[in-house]
Amino acid sequence: MRTVDLIHRKREGEELAPEEIKFLIDGYTRGEIPDYQASAFLMAVCYTGMTDREVSALTESMLASGETMNLSEIPGIKVDKHSTGGVGDKTSLIAAPLAAAAGVVVPMISGRGLGHTGGTLDKLESIPGFRTNLSSSEFLSQLKRTGLVIVGQSNELVPADGKLYALRDATATVESIPLMASSIMSKKLAEGVDALILDVKVGAGAFMKKQIEARRLAQMMVGIGRRMNKRVQALITDMSQPLGFAIGNALEIMEVSQTLQNSGPVDLTRLSIELAARMIHLGKVANSLEEARQIAEAKLLDGSGYRKFKEVIGAQGGEPKVLDRFELLPNATGMREIYSPRAGYVSAIDAQLIGQASTMIGAGRDTKDAAIDPAVGVILEVKVGHKIDAGGVLCRIYHTREERVEEAAELVEDAFRISQQAPEDRELILEVVG
Amino acid sequence: MRTVDLIHRKREGEELAPEEIKFLIDGYTRGEIPDYQASAFLMAVCYTGMTDREVSALTESMLASGETMNLSEIPGIKVDKHSTGGVGDKTSLIAAPLAAAAGVVVPMISGRGLGHTGGTLDKLESIPGFRTNLSSSEFLSQLKRTGLVIVGQSNELVPADGKLYALRDATATVESIPLMASSIMSKKLAEGVDALILDVKVGAGAFMKKQIEARRLAQMMVGIGRRMNKRVQALITDMSQPLGFAIGNALEIMEVSQTLQNSGPVDLTRLSIELAARMIHLGKVANSLEEARQIAEAKLLDGSGYRKFKEVIGAQGGEPKVLDRFELLPNATGMREIYSPRAGYVSAIDAQLIGQASTMIGAGRDTKDAAIDPAVGVILEVKVGHKIDAGGVLCRIYHTREERVEEAAELVEDAFRISQQAPEDRELILEVVG
Repeated sequence: MRTVDLIHRKREGEELAPEEIKFLIDGYTRGEIPDYQASAFLMAVCYTGMTDREVSALTESMLASGETMNLSEIPGIKVDKHSTGGVGDKTSLIAAPLAAAAGVVVPMISGRGLGHTGGTLDKLESIPGFRTNLSSSEFLSQLKRTGLVIVGQSNELVPADGKLYALRDATATVESIPLMASSIMSKKLAEGVDALILDVKVGAGAFMKKQIEARRLAQMMVGIGRRMNKRVQALITDMSQPLGFAIGNALEIMEVSQTLQNSGPVDLTRLSIELAARMIHLGKVANSLEEARQIAEAKLLDGSGYRKFKEVIGAQGGEPKVLDRFELLPNATGMREIYSPRAGYVSAIDAQLIGQASTMIGAGRDTKDAAIDPAVGVILEVKVGHKIDAGGVLCRIYHTREERVEEAAELVEDAFRISQQAPEDRELILEVVG
Repeated sequence: MRTVDLIHRKREGEELAPEEIKFLIDGYTRGEIPDYQASAFLMAVCYTGMTDREVSALTESMLASGETMNLSEIPGIKVDKHSTGGVGDKTSLIAAPLAAAAGVVVPMISGRGLGHTGGTLDKLESIPGFRTNLSSSEFLSQLKRTGLVIVGQSNELVPADGKLYALRDATATVESIPLMASSIMSKKLAEGVDALILDVKVGAGAFMKKQIEARRLAQMMVGIGRRMNKRVQALITDMSQPLGFAIGNALEIMEVSQTLQNSGPVDLTRLSIELAARMIHLGKVANSLEEARQIAEAKLLDGSGYRKFKEVIGAQGGEPKVLDRFELLPNATGMREIYSPRAGYVSAIDAQLIGQASTMIGAGRDTKDAAIDPAVGVILEVKVGHKIDAGGVLCRIYHTREERVEEAAELVEDAFRISQQAPEDRELILEVVG
């Protein structure tokens, strides 16, 4: 088997056999296949795609490149939740505590933000003392004790994905549905979970701009899971405007706190409840989805989700009091208001532009090694459909340095569209797959 | 300017600006852009192609990566000829001596064979003592003295192409029309020629399987030349069956000798005369193509092309007598005949299979560093359209080792198609471009 022949066949759109995919991934992980052949192969996949059989073989080969966590000593069905990445998307930090409070075992391995999208780990690390790099034994003992643990990915888990992802990032081969699907699913399956709920974002602020692409990604991931005997469901949800009001790490932790106390934004609360309900249903704590939804709502209303999140913060070295006393979180030193140029209805808030503006002032990172500023970000004052007066405040930019604030403010201004007509209602949860 | 952004834009089919192409090629040649980004870019080009402006910028950037030969001290119009590669294609060794005998100055820089196609240098090196690695001063003095010199490419000439070609070979990105066009044209333009005749092969034995692709390659190369003020013409010629009867290095030198003495195969003679005539016309030795054809034929009939080739062989350290006494050339030790399984007409001789069989027994190389056996090859006894009896000899395989002869014989058997109906005549010269 010659690598160049496999690249050639993939280039011509032929289906490769599982052992051929395995040959490529094993060879690349062991350093026998050079980066330049791997990147040519990845670019060919961007154009020709992969069949279900190919993407399953790719996922299994990646999975086999490292260790798989063994959670069998922990009783119960292990369920995780994963989002493909959005702006203001802090649902993991709400849904997971609600599900754990209901009795679901949630071993959550999260990622960092890149580009205009935020990452769960970055948000958690804005809590002073919070540790996301637990050892395996710490991970297992906390999961046993609290039913929820949220950590970053270790290098031992799916090394092939780490290596391939860095290469994709440098070679403009990130936006490929089979490559995204196998990257996500190999990491999630390596966690040793039994079931998984996926939140596939679609719209201006997401990687997937079109619903048909989001659906294909969702179907591909659900299929990979099914072929490996895992229960996987996917929601396709709107990411044309940011989720909730807060964008930025500490700002989002504050909004998580409010939402877990039932005083959060409507869209964020609704989606978090739905995700928690799906986790509860997949975790077989409830017999029907309707019952699971009632449990999730109850766990929000009785504050047990909120207490569960505090318990997790404390267990992972953070100060749980930050959820009540926001002054204990990193706070911005400067603020700038963005005003509406005219009266009307907010008809669009471009999530990507808001995300880019936040990244620009330090809330996110453009390169993997860049530092982030946990205090900064954007708080929306309006959402799509709201009425606004001329000169009314659209949002506030919170910053710690003046540098690039002007540039960020221009992006934010461009993000809002004000119309005379009220926009049509847009569904938040667009589709369920699986 | 970030390389990854340029790859991304090319991936999306956008046109890159000339300075962006230059940034990529300069950076890659200097080692600042890694192989893995270059290969992703090349694969994207395989899918999205290049505009005329892009391919000209690519060619000029490659040309600027090394030295360009200065032939200005040599009087006359310098004309070269290049073939995209075929099986049994020894026209360079016939057309160039004819043109030089007519007074055209021909500085020819040739390549080696790769895969199933042969290379002019390999053929010449089957002549004992023949040197293809002349110094610049040897090159210039011979060109001045004899009007024809045939050498290999030095590393100083277009280093970007050398580096890119090796990468393309390893990443299945060889068959891209703009990449082929820029590779060929940068090398030819670096020779400092004023005019160029291209022989673009099409058919089973060529890189281009379809005439529409061959036409696009020809048009692209003619366009690159025109934008750099060079006179460039291309013939598109049939390579469905091998050209002439001989395939294999020393065997082809024998056929060149016969053809230059007007006793060669009809197809080879006809195409060589046409190529020589185009060189004579581009070199302004004749005022019309018709006159140029008459000159080329005259140089064949009066033996001056034959004498010119002997002069070149002598000048480059070889023994000119090999053209008369074939026993001085490397000779095979074994021979195997391939017989027709039935009576009928030869309706096809797959040039690629014949080329692969020859390579298999040592006439060509599968990898760039492999050694070749100058003595071995195939001599056809029939061509498409000939009648054959059951058990009649289709061809003879000449070999020096028994190893793989059986396998080669099977390929050769598969190459012949024998039909009851005479095949339709197929044109040898299909199109003229430019």
